[in-house]
Amino acid sequence: MEIASEPNAESQPEAAPRAVDWDNPRVASILSAAAKCFARKGFTATTLAEIGKELGLRKSIVHYYFASKAALIHEVQSFAYHQYLDRVKDAIRVVGGDKKVRTTGALESLWDALHSNKTNIGLSIEVWSASRRDPELKRRAATLQKESRKLVADGIAEVLGSDASNVRAMEATSALILAVLNGLSVAEYLEGEDATAKEAYQTFLWLLRLGVQEVEKRG
Amino acid sequence: MEIASEPNAESQPEAAPRAVDWDNPRVASILSAAAKCFARKGFTATTLAEIGKELGLRKSIVHYYFASKAALIHEVQSFAYHQYLDRVKDAIRVVGGDKKVRTTGALESLWDALHSNKTNIGLSIEVWSASRRDPELKRRAATLQKESRKLVADGIAEVLGSDASNVRAMEATSALILAVLNGLSVAEYLEGEDATAKEAYQTFLWLLRLGVQEVEKRG
Repeated sequence: MEIASEPNAESQPEAAPRAVDWDNPRVASILSAAAKCFARKGFTATTLAEIGKELGLRKSIVHYYFASKAALIHEVQSFAYHQYLDRVKDAIRVVGGDKKVRTTGALESLWDALHSNKTNIGLSIEVWSASRRDPELKRRAATLQKESRKLVADGIAEVLGSDASNVRAMEATSALILAVLNGLSVAEYLEGEDATAKEAYQTFLWLLRLGVQEVEKRG
Repeated sequence: MEIASEPNAESQPEAAPRAVDWDNPRVASILSAAAKCFARKGFTATTLAEIGKELGLRKSIVHYYFASKAALIHEVQSFAYHQYLDRVKDAIRVVGGDKKVRTTGALESLWDALHSNKTNIGLSIEVWSASRRDPELKRRAATLQKESRKLVADGIAEVLGSDASNVRAMEATSALILAVLNGLSVAEYLEGEDATAKEAYQTFLWLLRLGVQEVEKRG
């Protein structure tokens, strides 16, 4: 098939932007390599050629799938964020135990899931910084943030069996949880891994357990 | 005095780096204008000429005080961070009320103090991003972060009257508080000001009051 085949020669004429299929293994590998490069060196200092080199691919092949670096940046942002959302979904799907244990058990998994991936925070910082000059990137970052807040809020509501009247409280708690994860990831990014961030997170989970207890007492 | 006078001509030869005196009003005005420009456009896109223009000064005058943009960036970082620390100090010096009220009263002021200043988070994000390629900037950011953690930990310890055995718990709580402030500031930076961040912070303060209550019950 002409359209689906990759370019064989460097002389490939400018490729039109293509709808990106994340299930295509080559596309996924380019996005994943790009995320790593961007997190390590930033958007400006990273070239399409370098991203190709990570995979042993010519620049023209990267260019075949992504018409421009800007297009690749937006796609990497969505791709990485959806991986993040998937990890959040997996983490909050923890079962068993009482409400307190279930809530904080899910949040323990969330920490482990995000913590094991250094590319996350590097890429996030780069997105926040580039958002200043790229309104589309900022709009997307805001949307993705709202989505993950909703996801965590739904997870909490499910565990606590909350009714609709509590929706705003769930949203606020969810915003708090995501802020703690972001804030502690930044602290670790700057200071290197040490015990402080982990202890701060444990303190947070202890406070959340007190909060759940208090809500149950009142309800 | 020859050394203290500013250059009068564009042809001023390359100025040697000078010890920077924050009490010098001109130095303070340059640092403050630079912080605004950096927060708005980022380090790379901002020129010394633009910073001078903000103040109606020629580039040569900015250059007289700061030998290079790199020197100015490091100085702005320290300057902005010490202003931040001063605001933290002022905020946690709130008096009156019982322990719970004092703790969260101080943290209410802290939110207001940091919240009123949009330059803070813009500059922080730029520092985090540039830290990737500037190890000195990262080292300084890590040191300044440790200092503010210590400051908040001391403030909590004073309010709670904690003994030395609790030092690690205070440090963890302090790291958590600063992470919440950073994380929520990032959320507001991306999504614009809305009620969610404020409500998330109120939820956090409610949890902290439960925590203080629990500690008092046990002690």
